[in-house]
Amino acid sequence: MSWLAISPDSHFSIANIPFGIITTSSDATKRPAIAIGDYALDLKAFASAGGFEDSPEIQKHATVWSKESLNAFAALGRPFHRLVREYLQSVFGADTKIPQVLKDNEQLKQAALFKRAEIRNHMPLVVGDYTDFYAGKNHAYNIGVLFRGPANALQPNYTHLPVAYHGRASSVVVSGTPIRRPWGQILKDPKAEPKVPVLSPCEKLDLELEMGMFICRENQLGNPIPIAEADDYVFGYVLMNDWSARDIQAWEYVPLGPFTAKNLGTTVSAWVVLADALEGSKTAGIANDNTLLPYLEEKTKENCLDIHLEVDLTTSNGDKSTISKSNSKHLLWSWPQMIAHHTITGCNLRPGDLLGSGTITGDTPGSEGSILEQTQGGKKAIQLRGGEERMFLQDGDTLTIRGWAGQEGALIGFGEVTGTIQPALPLF
Amino acid sequence: MSWLAISPDSHFSIANIPFGIITTSSDATKRPAIAIGDYALDLKAFASAGGFEDSPEIQKHATVWSKESLNAFAALGRPFHRLVREYLQSVFGADTKIPQVLKDNEQLKQAALFKRAEIRNHMPLVVGDYTDFYAGKNHAYNIGVLFRGPANALQPNYTHLPVAYHGRASSVVVSGTPIRRPWGQILKDPKAEPKVPVLSPCEKLDLELEMGMFICRENQLGNPIPIAEADDYVFGYVLMNDWSARDIQAWEYVPLGPFTAKNLGTTVSAWVVLADALEGSKTAGIANDNTLLPYLEEKTKENCLDIHLEVDLTTSNGDKSTISKSNSKHLLWSWPQMIAHHTITGCNLRPGDLLGSGTITGDTPGSEGSILEQTQGGKKAIQLRGGEERMFLQDGDTLTIRGWAGQEGALIGFGEVTGTIQPALPLF
Repeated sequence: MSWLAISPDSHFSIANIPFGIITTSSDATKRPAIAIGDYALDLKAFASAGGFEDSPEIQKHATVWSKESLNAFAALGRPFHRLVREYLQSVFGADTKIPQVLKDNEQLKQAALFKRAEIRNHMPLVVGDYTDFYAGKNHAYNIGVLFRGPANALQPNYTHLPVAYHGRASSVVVSGTPIRRPWGQILKDPKAEPKVPVLSPCEKLDLELEMGMFICRENQLGNPIPIAEADDYVFGYVLMNDWSARDIQAWEYVPLGPFTAKNLGTTVSAWVVLADALEGSKTAGIANDNTLLPYLEEKTKENCLDIHLEVDLTTSNGDKSTISKSNSKHLLWSWPQMIAHHTITGCNLRPGDLLGSGTITGDTPGSEGSILEQTQGGKKAIQLRGGEERMFLQDGDTLTIRGWAGQEGALIGFGEVTGTIQPALPLF
Repeated sequence: MSWLAISPDSHFSIANIPFGIITTSSDATKRPAIAIGDYALDLKAFASAGGFEDSPEIQKHATVWSKESLNAFAALGRPFHRLVREYLQSVFGADTKIPQVLKDNEQLKQAALFKRAEIRNHMPLVVGDYTDFYAGKNHAYNIGVLFRGPANALQPNYTHLPVAYHGRASSVVVSGTPIRRPWGQILKDPKAEPKVPVLSPCEKLDLELEMGMFICRENQLGNPIPIAEADDYVFGYVLMNDWSARDIQAWEYVPLGPFTAKNLGTTVSAWVVLADALEGSKTAGIANDNTLLPYLEEKTKENCLDIHLEVDLTTSNGDKSTISKSNSKHLLWSWPQMIAHHTITGCNLRPGDLLGSGTITGDTPGSEGSILEQTQGGKKAIQLRGGEERMFLQDGDTLTIRGWAGQEGALIGFGEVTGTIQPALPLF
């Protein structure tokens, strides 16, 4: 419990303490902050007023609070993140032993504690490389059926290694950034010969419900990360919407994978939930019957995050429908397994690198992580409140993903990741 | 001609003036330099001694010469690069009108002009995103035959759009960096059922002979770059070796493309040859019989760089064999076409982004850009000087790519890109 009034249904309970980058109307300098209840604590202002002086170890690294991204903080490693989170929990605790720091310090509250409605969020980290995995087995199967038929839906490698591809880092944007409907090459009639594409605005714009994970530690090129050490490389997690142009993807993706169909934008939530905050929210993922190669073997089956996920579609006239409910446990591979595989040939990870889980689809109708799956490839429209229906996203639609772990009063949530579809630009 | 003695066979004639990042034994600070003849001119030392004072326009941006990468210089745009190159050509010209700047300035020569053998090169730019195209049609066909048979060697999209995939930026390294033989998942017998991979050091380590191109200008997310403006986004070119683990690649690449088989290292040459330096070295690439969509149409067919390329393999006992001779004109797509396609769905490029051409294989035996092609998929060994032969790369092998345009006395060359294979590490 905190001395600060926090609603029991807040994603940002004192058990959470997620980190982000903010600006305010009075100060356009990007700076680190945490979310707590309906507030954001500006860590630059907090640190410069001596807020961390009761912890000499944190104080030693005070420069990280004046950076414009969380990369420097992330690079200090998990023991340091833990120290800062626990210190801030002690500052906000109802029985705080250091009330003079903030609780009884009206001046610092005025200077550093902002209503979240008054701040603006920015990308929490500068993304070095972005890798998107494909660990959502139900999704991979459903998409495989649509693209290649049931016999070849999952390739023989799928249960032996976490399939992934390199994504585009430059087009990763923070929640709230509008998404422009793209133009692209589309094969309107896949059965006609010869196959001649047209240039057209995307007609099959889709979402992908994913979790993202930011890396906090570097390994040297040529040196794989042992799976037992992989947890040390995890800074924290975000919700992610990997917008996808399905018609463009279907034509371009052979033989080297998706390219322009995916680099139109990938949206992440603004607040990074630290790895430590989710240590108590682990469960078993999708079972893998294979004997895994030792570099992918973990001591526990409880290696998957248990995070409830929901997707809302809000039409331009304001009607909101929840179109999917899923959970981040519907993955075949854990984050440590993804890290171990990513680096097995020696690939170097760096603080700020972003790994995506792949689309998370559950095992029941209504848990699909993409519209393509939910409409069975554009066959069965989604019925929305207000009477509209959707085969794919329309201009003006707003997609909102929410996610949280834990119980009321101590929720560890991500807030929302949202994006609104803007109409295609006139081309040139 | 220059007052500096430059050998007629130097890649770094006064017609070239390529840019890189260096350190010296007396100063470990990374800083910009140009290569000329057997020398490197330290631009930080040159600028701080007033070397650019005869050009007020260059002088205005003097801070770029104290950066540790060329990104800031690149971001100033092509007209600025042109100005600097022409100014430095006037400084080094035999009939220089400003001899007091360097020619007659022994003190500055001592401080800023280093024998290249005495300097160390570093990555010329910080790579934001790295995209690898697949524009070498002969290579794509040869590899397609090996992976999928002649009927499906080239996919229907191949001649309609420049196929590409997102590569790994963190593992792009400068010439001379050793390359560690990777471990990875390999399917030893692709015909056995069930398909069960093993973890093994790569047994099919290969090179890929490519050109690389660095971006110098930013476009906003959601705004495609018109092909007529694409040239303005080109900073310059490098040679590239996109090391590839063929056995790992064959198992992992479906359905999302290569991943760990390619993120073990990508080597680029140290000196970036400016786009302007190669304006006179254009020729027609591989003809494309398709009617292209307008966003890919160019005014000229002479849209391909005419750069002679060679690959040497040097064994650990020092025997050197030239195993391939090719030319960068063996591409189906030009750099402006790659830029136009990369951004058609709105992807934002940033200064420092690296685009690869894809492997460049000519149309005659001995012009293959990979060992996989030259050995016809591991069937016909390459005979080396000294009596050894190769199906794939062995530990201790050094690969060297050279490339140049122009004529003796005015060569516009890239120097070399080299890498030596180190044995696999013991795993964990």
